[in-house]
Amino acid sequence: MSASPLSSPNARLLGRPGGRAALDTPALVVDRAALDRNIAAMAAHVRAAGIALRPHVKTHKSVVIARRQVAAGALGVSCVTLGEAEIMVRANIPGVHVTSPATTAAKIARLVALARSPHRGLSAVVDHPDNVAALSVALRDAPAPLAVFVDVDAGQGRTGCTFDAAPKLAQVVRAAPGLAFAGIQAYAGHLQHVPARAERRERTLRLADRLRDLLQALARDGLPASVVTGGGTGTFDLDPEARIFTELQVGSYVFMDVEYRRALTDGRNALPFETALFVATAVVSVNQPDYVVTDAGLKSFATDGPPPEPARGAPPGSRYEFFGDEHGKLFVPVGATRPALGSVIECVTPHCDPTVNLHDLYHVVDRDTLVELWPVDARGKR
Amino acid sequence: MSASPLSSPNARLLGRPGGRAALDTPALVVDRAALDRNIAAMAAHVRAAGIALRPHVKTHKSVVIARRQVAAGALGVSCVTLGEAEIMVRANIPGVHVTSPATTAAKIARLVALARSPHRGLSAVVDHPDNVAALSVALRDAPAPLAVFVDVDAGQGRTGCTFDAAPKLAQVVRAAPGLAFAGIQAYAGHLQHVPARAERRERTLRLADRLRDLLQALARDGLPASVVTGGGTGTFDLDPEARIFTELQVGSYVFMDVEYRRALTDGRNALPFETALFVATAVVSVNQPDYVVTDAGLKSFATDGPPPEPARGAPPGSRYEFFGDEHGKLFVPVGATRPALGSVIECVTPHCDPTVNLHDLYHVVDRDTLVELWPVDARGKR
Repeated sequence: MSASPLSSPNARLLGRPGGRAALDTPALVVDRAALDRNIAAMAAHVRAAGIALRPHVKTHKSVVIARRQVAAGALGVSCVTLGEAEIMVRANIPGVHVTSPATTAAKIARLVALARSPHRGLSAVVDHPDNVAALSVALRDAPAPLAVFVDVDAGQGRTGCTFDAAPKLAQVVRAAPGLAFAGIQAYAGHLQHVPARAERRERTLRLADRLRDLLQALARDGLPASVVTGGGTGTFDLDPEARIFTELQVGSYVFMDVEYRRALTDGRNALPFETALFVATAVVSVNQPDYVVTDAGLKSFATDGPPPEPARGAPPGSRYEFFGDEHGKLFVPVGATRPALGSVIECVTPHCDPTVNLHDLYHVVDRDTLVELWPVDARGKR
Repeated sequence: MSASPLSSPNARLLGRPGGRAALDTPALVVDRAALDRNIAAMAAHVRAAGIALRPHVKTHKSVVIARRQVAAGALGVSCVTLGEAEIMVRANIPGVHVTSPATTAAKIARLVALARSPHRGLSAVVDHPDNVAALSVALRDAPAPLAVFVDVDAGQGRTGCTFDAAPKLAQVVRAAPGLAFAGIQAYAGHLQHVPARAERRERTLRLADRLRDLLQALARDGLPASVVTGGGTGTFDLDPEARIFTELQVGSYVFMDVEYRRALTDGRNALPFETALFVATAVVSVNQPDYVVTDAGLKSFATDGPPPEPARGAPPGSRYEFFGDEHGKLFVPVGATRPALGSVIECVTPHCDPTVNLHDLYHVVDRDTLVELWPVDARGKR
């Protein structure tokens, strides 16, 4: 577990006007009102569509945010690692679903420990009969069977069995002591960032057709899949249209990031979610003619996506470049006033999930004021 | 602080034969014998060169490793963040030097708190007169002056004043109550990965000429710089040859990584340090024809450099590709046996510093056995 948020040097700023601009940097900043509007917008969206929500914890790794999602109507949360699931179970978040297979002896032992805990609604996935056999041996004496989804490869090629193999695998799960067939998982990670909405829609609906055929085959075999879980922020409105998914595993909608903002605004397809996440960074050197140097580098921002986008405190049109572990370059447009030595600016995060994973604390702001500190509970938890 | 290492699911493997291959994954693995040989090799190198060693903590962020470096003769450690310095001071590591300017009110307050602690040998850097003024105001009543280096831009353009501005800035430091001029810092980050040794040497020696001129100018002004700190793993043998640096801030030599191995082996210039750091990852899915899927992705490896290199447990010639937050693709050569579902392989880390920063624990191995767990004490500490 992380240290208490109150041991942060920023705790002294709580409630003080102007605290946001005085944060000890680099600091992960969340705009609470924007976060809550995003949570409410997605909750309203799925309610209108008549489906359920099991938002993905990998984005925020936070018990407080998971609770807000559940309070807004989510039936549970999705977790990619057992470490995330352990944190959520310990915090009494309901309906914890683990989206990646547990295949080593160590991981299976941890999954079994969770399954034997008093937590209600745990579920897991399998994509191979050998894994079903291993789980069944470990769980055959459990007080109740573990709900297991057959993970089908939606085209990304990451985890999941082929569509052809899925009906057989579902039968293997049904026959396995200690396991209960719970439905189908299909996560189309490869479609989330397809920029043109028309193509994103067409490919999402084509995937839905394949899933519909699979569900019919399962029903013919006497194994109706009452739950179909999947979907992401990039296809949040297309997945319900396809009328296949009974619940969505959306994650990034709570924060949004440069990646989602850029990828999906091509052709006026901006998502109806606001940027709620930033990293605050301070100017540490002003000796260069073309840029100032800030104190947030590749240990504060994920580097797998586009660069961070300067926002609050930076002149419009500023540009950020990575400059090693703990530094960045901030280029300011010609004629604009350069931020002074020691001043704090904020950047929109490039790829929100791995950026959050670099930080221990959310600095929760309401306009100019630091109002709360929330731990990133599952940071680094595997 | 992190949780106790003994709360890790891997603690049960300590001392058990074969524990290395049974690690709960992803896990940061350090080969203790290779680490100690690297520490000894650098210590012998600087001893032979008649200069001192102040290795950089940003690489390992570990009190245990800092203690091993000091035991081998290092006079202290370099830290880029105040968070790293606070951890090292609290652990009674001597000679803690902070390599990046403290420019915000929050950072200056933390530096002052360190300067007022009983720790011996703290030092810091400045690269701007405004920062000297701010530090002096904060430290004018301190019981002893803070040792302050003038940071000179060695050509990387990150922090540091120009060579021309340095003599004046040194005078400003000398005149500032609460501060004592300690010498010059010049870190040539841009030369560390120049692949061809001849070019690396030529540019290092040219930088040395400029520094020599600066030191002569300072001496003429009555401000001899008795300490000149800088250097990195890529120029570890060239910096002493230049006879300017009185101490080296080398970091990566303790572990080595794909970046250093690749960049500097062009033209038979391999460094005399061994790979001591790996990330262990398990196979979680085997349904694809061309690759298997592992459980270490961009939350386990830094993504700013080359991809990780498969090693132990992977057939020779295997290749790793990133596949999202928590997954990787392992391509195995045609004809080789694919690692089985649940088996553990290890990869050489791409860029060691930011990779370490993604992990809470070092899994310390002696051949096949897990022998110790060391916390990454300063992970995420700003």
